[in-house]
Amino acid sequence: MNFNTLTATHISDLKAMVSEDRFSTGESVLKLHAKDQSHHRGCRPEAVIWPQDTAEVVAILKYANANQLPVVGWGSGSSLEGNPIPVQKGLVLDFTQMNRILDVREEDFQVDVEPGVVYQDLNEHLKNTGLFFPPDPGARATVGGMIANNASGTRTVYYGSTKDYVLKLKIVLASGEILEMGRRVAKTSSGYDMPHLFVGSEGTLGIVVEATLRLAGLPEEFSAAVVTFPSIEAASKAVSNIVRYGLNPAALELLDASCIELFNKEKALGLEISPTLFIEFHGPSMAYLSEIMGMTEEICKETGSLAFNPGLGREARNRLFEARHELGEMITRAHPDCRIQVLDAAVPMSTYPEIIALAKQAPEETGIKGYAFSHAGDGNLHLCLAGRKDEKGDWDLIDQIGQRLVSKAISLGGTATGEHGVGIGKRKYMLDEHGNSLAWMKRIKALFDPHGILNPGKIFP
Amino acid sequence: MNFNTLTATHISDLKAMVSEDRFSTGESVLKLHAKDQSHHRGCRPEAVIWPQDTAEVVAILKYANANQLPVVGWGSGSSLEGNPIPVQKGLVLDFTQMNRILDVREEDFQVDVEPGVVYQDLNEHLKNTGLFFPPDPGARATVGGMIANNASGTRTVYYGSTKDYVLKLKIVLASGEILEMGRRVAKTSSGYDMPHLFVGSEGTLGIVVEATLRLAGLPEEFSAAVVTFPSIEAASKAVSNIVRYGLNPAALELLDASCIELFNKEKALGLEISPTLFIEFHGPSMAYLSEIMGMTEEICKETGSLAFNPGLGREARNRLFEARHELGEMITRAHPDCRIQVLDAAVPMSTYPEIIALAKQAPEETGIKGYAFSHAGDGNLHLCLAGRKDEKGDWDLIDQIGQRLVSKAISLGGTATGEHGVGIGKRKYMLDEHGNSLAWMKRIKALFDPHGILNPGKIFP
Repeated sequence: MNFNTLTATHISDLKAMVSEDRFSTGESVLKLHAKDQSHHRGCRPEAVIWPQDTAEVVAILKYANANQLPVVGWGSGSSLEGNPIPVQKGLVLDFTQMNRILDVREEDFQVDVEPGVVYQDLNEHLKNTGLFFPPDPGARATVGGMIANNASGTRTVYYGSTKDYVLKLKIVLASGEILEMGRRVAKTSSGYDMPHLFVGSEGTLGIVVEATLRLAGLPEEFSAAVVTFPSIEAASKAVSNIVRYGLNPAALELLDASCIELFNKEKALGLEISPTLFIEFHGPSMAYLSEIMGMTEEICKETGSLAFNPGLGREARNRLFEARHELGEMITRAHPDCRIQVLDAAVPMSTYPEIIALAKQAPEETGIKGYAFSHAGDGNLHLCLAGRKDEKGDWDLIDQIGQRLVSKAISLGGTATGEHGVGIGKRKYMLDEHGNSLAWMKRIKALFDPHGILNPGKIFP
Repeated sequence: MNFNTLTATHISDLKAMVSEDRFSTGESVLKLHAKDQSHHRGCRPEAVIWPQDTAEVVAILKYANANQLPVVGWGSGSSLEGNPIPVQKGLVLDFTQMNRILDVREEDFQVDVEPGVVYQDLNEHLKNTGLFFPPDPGARATVGGMIANNASGTRTVYYGSTKDYVLKLKIVLASGEILEMGRRVAKTSSGYDMPHLFVGSEGTLGIVVEATLRLAGLPEEFSAAVVTFPSIEAASKAVSNIVRYGLNPAALELLDASCIELFNKEKALGLEISPTLFIEFHGPSMAYLSEIMGMTEEICKETGSLAFNPGLGREARNRLFEARHELGEMITRAHPDCRIQVLDAAVPMSTYPEIIALAKQAPEETGIKGYAFSHAGDGNLHLCLAGRKDEKGDWDLIDQIGQRLVSKAISLGGTATGEHGVGIGKRKYMLDEHGNSLAWMKRIKALFDPHGILNPGKIFP
């Protein structure tokens, strides 16, 4: 695809579509929209527009489509695989001003939102209803970005991913056509499942301008434990058994000793420096939770746990998960001369100890500092690798580690990305993972966006 | 689309692709594949083929595509909206001989199956693993048919629909191309969600030849209750409140007095003849279940329940659900001179009492005998209507009732079909329900099946 560079005419035409203060070509604005939180090289767009309603999005897309200008949707820039980096320049549509919570229907367990709503703000808004939107990617992500990447996180093992909560979408296609898909019902078997085609499509098929989300009931009670193990292999075996015995944890996070060291350093948590599981259960009563926790303790002991500390109060639990959510930043701070790459892959549960072993061994063999942590309960692994900014040698090694780990995950029947999306970094694995299905994804892309203006350079190799 | 009639050459070519005994043009065989369990008029195919492996399906589809012959996949013929009726004649591929359980991976909670496996047989096979495939459409449906229709049933309110259990599909496209889509992982954000595009597409996009299904853990304990109400409105209000209070029933079935009357007559259940809820909970311990059951009783009393009978044993519970699953046949037997039409629609939970009221009122106004029963917990309603076989007047009235009910469901934000699929009968509502998304579904159909040979005459008006 060839794209046009933004001309003075384009600029004046686009400016006229929104109010003056919602169009910018200012250097600092362009810089802020050049890069997400990934290690990928940034690229400045030529202009940033803050739409406030569907009609504006329609007008902008129609114009961009007619003038062959690339368009990328932007939430909070918290993605980790370069997903919204405007690699072909063009326009960024920043949705932070299109962030209304349109309707809460408590009795239906549903909410209608605009894409710019930050999910923590949504849950804050919902707190007196007893309902919440469970996917918990950690960063201050927008719902639009979460839908684009099918985001998930610590609670997914129990509550599912974003895709499990999207009932209905209003989408603007590249042509400017508005498409409503899905229904406000708990179940339907009516025609093709269009919403699920758009969830996780990373803004390459259309732009979400409204979503109806299903909500879950807030749990009555919770119970959390911290468990330490002599090795990451033993911890991962415990994970596999907890899942196998159907204990349904609401969070099952594995952290290696390096991560725990950072927690103690930055948060003074005073944890044993050893491979560790954070385990949480949600349930209707404390009696039930103690029963489940007892079974969990037994399983952990069988795989050689060193210490099992249950009964964390809400405050201690929140401090742990806050630390967990800040881990990426802690690693960055611990290596001021380095860039950090986060690897993300997922495998079938039975092969989890195998991928964890490789995540430990591969960095050790190369001398690159690695931090392994993961949403272990759903077979999802993250490995943070620190490479010195200008040392090509480090980055070649990091590439090799990434290649080994992701190829291994795929060969185990797994996926190149459990939750960060394909973005830029995982494109090279797509053929290996999807075979000839990839060609059909491309045909679907061409059907919905024939000029290829929507988030070009992503997903497809 | 114009299709060719099967010639002697076609017949001898197709016969050569499978063993002699797996191709038939015999009248009795054609008659058996002319009609599902719906009220829709049957249509005999020109030949029935029983494939035994993917290579045979590939060869048949390639040939059919080149010769413009319609092809319909066939499971057990238990669908209720005419979904597999070969309205354009041509070939039926009967998958009952392609029914192997290929691999059970207990630690991964996964199973690989061929499409002809009957789901009860699958669960029987799994029973010693502590795992099961939850969607429970009632009839002896095949997994292939369940995937085609995104089947659900009594357990969906808690466990979800078929779509929630499909991880990976092997599909043969109309061209004969084999497509593998999805991965054997609990979560992924890797490219477009192709499996969900095919689940519920009613065999119009491709033919499933293998599926990897996620499994759930069998519940430790269950508890069931039968609750009677003075009116169907009161019962439906209780449903709405049970869902609202987040009690997470594993089944929440509403039956009107006419249904209960049939249960007593055919199964001697001795139930109070009054609108009734069957409620079931699954959980880890009886203590937990009694707590939940207590709260349920309170809610039912608040909405005026006449009697609350908890503590059903496994045998009594099974007899109730067997009766529930046989209800369609009971209604047929009760009206030997009639054909029976089952209406299926779903609405947002808060509007459930409204649609239930209409389901009672509309048949009463016309003098047509109606039986209302439903998977109430997820806003899904069924209404069985009995019309004399050759009385056009009856069928005009039944059409009117259907039109009123489905249009009302759509106007409430609901769907024309909660679980039976679009098939033949719901095509006329598709534009109303999906708006311009329907045109995009058609474009996707044309992309995957450009000659339109796969299950023509379904889904699209």
